[in-house]
Amino acid sequence: MAQSVDLLVLHAHLLTMQGNGVGYLRDGALAVRGDSLVDVGRSSELAQRYQATETLDATNCAVMPGLVDVHMHTVYAIVRGVAQDVSNWMQKGLAPFARHMDAEAARAGTRLNIVEAMQAGTTTMGDFVRPYPGWGECYAEAGVRACLTPTINALPPGGMAGLELGDLYPLDEKAGRESIAAALAICDRWQGAEDGRITTMLGPQGTDMIGLEQLLEVARIAEERGLMLHVHVAQGDREIDQMVKRYGQRTPAFLADNKLLNDRLLAVHLTEATDEETDLIAESGAPMALCSGSIGIIDGIVPPARRFREKGGIVGLGSDQASGNNCNNIFNEMKLTALFNKIKYRDPQVMPAWEVLRMGTIEGARAMGLGDRIGSLEVGKQADLIVVDVNTANILPIIDAPVRTLVPNLIYAGTGKEVQTMVVAGRIVMRDREILTLSESKVRAEAQHQAELIGERVSQDPLHRELALLSAMQAGQL
Amino acid sequence: MAQSVDLLVLHAHLLTMQGNGVGYLRDGALAVRGDSLVDVGRSSELAQRYQATETLDATNCAVMPGLVDVHMHTVYAIVRGVAQDVSNWMQKGLAPFARHMDAEAARAGTRLNIVEAMQAGTTTMGDFVRPYPGWGECYAEAGVRACLTPTINALPPGGMAGLELGDLYPLDEKAGRESIAAALAICDRWQGAEDGRITTMLGPQGTDMIGLEQLLEVARIAEERGLMLHVHVAQGDREIDQMVKRYGQRTPAFLADNKLLNDRLLAVHLTEATDEETDLIAESGAPMALCSGSIGIIDGIVPPARRFREKGGIVGLGSDQASGNNCNNIFNEMKLTALFNKIKYRDPQVMPAWEVLRMGTIEGARAMGLGDRIGSLEVGKQADLIVVDVNTANILPIIDAPVRTLVPNLIYAGTGKEVQTMVVAGRIVMRDREILTLSESKVRAEAQHQAELIGERVSQDPLHRELALLSAMQAGQL
Repeated sequence: MAQSVDLLVLHAHLLTMQGNGVGYLRDGALAVRGDSLVDVGRSSELAQRYQATETLDATNCAVMPGLVDVHMHTVYAIVRGVAQDVSNWMQKGLAPFARHMDAEAARAGTRLNIVEAMQAGTTTMGDFVRPYPGWGECYAEAGVRACLTPTINALPPGGMAGLELGDLYPLDEKAGRESIAAALAICDRWQGAEDGRITTMLGPQGTDMIGLEQLLEVARIAEERGLMLHVHVAQGDREIDQMVKRYGQRTPAFLADNKLLNDRLLAVHLTEATDEETDLIAESGAPMALCSGSIGIIDGIVPPARRFREKGGIVGLGSDQASGNNCNNIFNEMKLTALFNKIKYRDPQVMPAWEVLRMGTIEGARAMGLGDRIGSLEVGKQADLIVVDVNTANILPIIDAPVRTLVPNLIYAGTGKEVQTMVVAGRIVMRDREILTLSESKVRAEAQHQAELIGERVSQDPLHRELALLSAMQAGQL
Repeated sequence: MAQSVDLLVLHAHLLTMQGNGVGYLRDGALAVRGDSLVDVGRSSELAQRYQATETLDATNCAVMPGLVDVHMHTVYAIVRGVAQDVSNWMQKGLAPFARHMDAEAARAGTRLNIVEAMQAGTTTMGDFVRPYPGWGECYAEAGVRACLTPTINALPPGGMAGLELGDLYPLDEKAGRESIAAALAICDRWQGAEDGRITTMLGPQGTDMIGLEQLLEVARIAEERGLMLHVHVAQGDREIDQMVKRYGQRTPAFLADNKLLNDRLLAVHLTEATDEETDLIAESGAPMALCSGSIGIIDGIVPPARRFREKGGIVGLGSDQASGNNCNNIFNEMKLTALFNKIKYRDPQVMPAWEVLRMGTIEGARAMGLGDRIGSLEVGKQADLIVVDVNTANILPIIDAPVRTLVPNLIYAGTGKEVQTMVVAGRIVMRDREILTLSESKVRAEAQHQAELIGERVSQDPLHRELALLSAMQAGQL
């Protein structure tokens, strides 16, 4: 007799991501009970075996694990477009806007970013922001999986205004204490919330932005609570310069000497990591967050992910921040990662499609310490999956022999907008591109409204005259 | 009294591409009579001035010139996905498939590619293929603008089977003659057809693939007929090797010595061009076709477009072929061009958004010798335009002050799928993403069918054992 399940997905080009490749199953099927996958196999078998409350016919669709974005700063979606094509994106692009963002703007940004990411197939969002009221609630409402990393730093409240390039940042022990307390409040509230859908990490923004004592305190708390650390590492020459001036060491050696380099550290960017430093981090077991799009746009650099993987390291993909990326779309990150590395090494064989697909799914999950729960379609894992229409003019044709074109066409020709339906923890949160958990049109309208308010405030702030893009604006290039 | 026009577009974020920037007009409007633009200005003024048979409300949309793809091989859309991630994409990827393509498959590929390109905003398609029955008719039917370049070469009918790497290609004078005759038949039939919407060029495939005498004959005929030449130039080390062996010269010097280097030559790729060769071509007035996506994937190389432009050269964008790109989408090419060049020069200021937008519109039009007819929204030019929804979660927000985010967000966050409506020569050929001139679902079904037939034929051909992707297939990576 047929067993009952909540959801049955039939007739898919199934990319389970099991094993070492993509785990393809032709005419594949999934059975979901509650929040979990209870069966993965052939449609002919599962259709017989189960009686489902709801059945999704995935004919002409790829079904794959929901994509994993290990590193985002969602609030900055609200200032998308203000910081690219310039030489100092942070100071001369983002900063004059960021100082005029309030909690409402931040929330509008996070929500916009969640909608954008969902519509591009991302089910797990690793969000790294200075906590504001309502942050976690955005994820609770949207129904996606989130790992919240509240930013921790000891920078003085007035910021770094007046500092010359190369001056050592002033560190403010009290600011650090407050920052740590605010972060712990987030962890208290959200770690394991929403039936485990929401988790947390502790996020010292950079080793240059907090004193050693407080950094070690954060690490100790993380260990006690079983949380990972999520830290920008070797993210720029400015950071390295600060570290050398303050400690006489570059960041990776500093981390190693302070026993912070291990598999509980998610190391973000490695933009400026040397070969030796890359090896050191990879061999320590610390996973890497690779943000190809943002580092490409804002720095013109391809981080050392290939070498990191060759040394046995785990690499997940992150879309970083929309002010200088300018999108939060793991389809985009998978494609750019493949292409940028082919160019970096002048070799078309580097980073083939299947490899970046693994980074966007199972490897990303492992990088976040969630590899046992998500990232592949396996019995017992959470039912986080996306249904992607591949019967589109940009992805067709899909042939099976003598070589299968599904994966390269998804990666190199897909845009993310082919994602139709999304299931997170067994619940359908998007169907035929309509998000069921929130009002997309309201999110869009609020984002536009808040961005206009910020724009007005920035226009009235004399600091806007330092915006690097002003000259392009005046030249009629924007 | 209001004058009558056929079409009025109102309330757009208008990117006219007039002048040296993007020619932005807030709340902009266009008036179209017949196939031409008769007015460009403010909505408030044009709405009063004209009475229109049809009015398009472009609120929350960007309206811009239709995109120009200067170099495509549309037939290969039918084998999308068979040639990437390998070291010899042509011999070990495409070739085993290409030999099993018949005219029906070619037509299905062209049609699929036209649909894909239209849905990504391309109104002008520079298509370079070995002519087959029904080729031009695909464009006549679709209603887009095309420049047909029938491939000319003197390679023997049996192809280059049996040749060792480095052997001089055998050139067959009779094959060359037939190829030239077939090309001229296309030009006779299609030059200026469909009220001028279809034009032609003559396309010696490469200077290494036809004898000098026939090459010069083709050039003479092109001059007589007022047609441009469209030639792959310095496209690979194989070509350079052939040229040095045959003529003792690399391609650019050979072209210069034979008086072929001038503004009537569209020079494609320049993958292997040295700095000096890049300068030589740019300064000759010959425009460059830059195919960032395909050369990135198949070669891991960023062609010298930046230097070419600095030397005063004109650069248009091409999507090349889907077997190794793997898409034909000028939004994709604009973004990749900006990013790849930032990485090549390790400088985020290189190739800003507005510059690649010019390459995808007015500069592409100029590269094809059509700069006086298309590529910008100006009175007297053809009404080729696209309406792009920017009220989407991936492109929002759009602010106007203190800097405008429209262009960077379109280029870096747009995917092409935001294009809603397309007008070519004054006629609406796509509305709300529905193509009005042909049945998209039939095109997709036929493409899938033809690709499956090719796949079966290739599977039965012992040559398929040489496919570089076979090992990935066996390893479960596809």
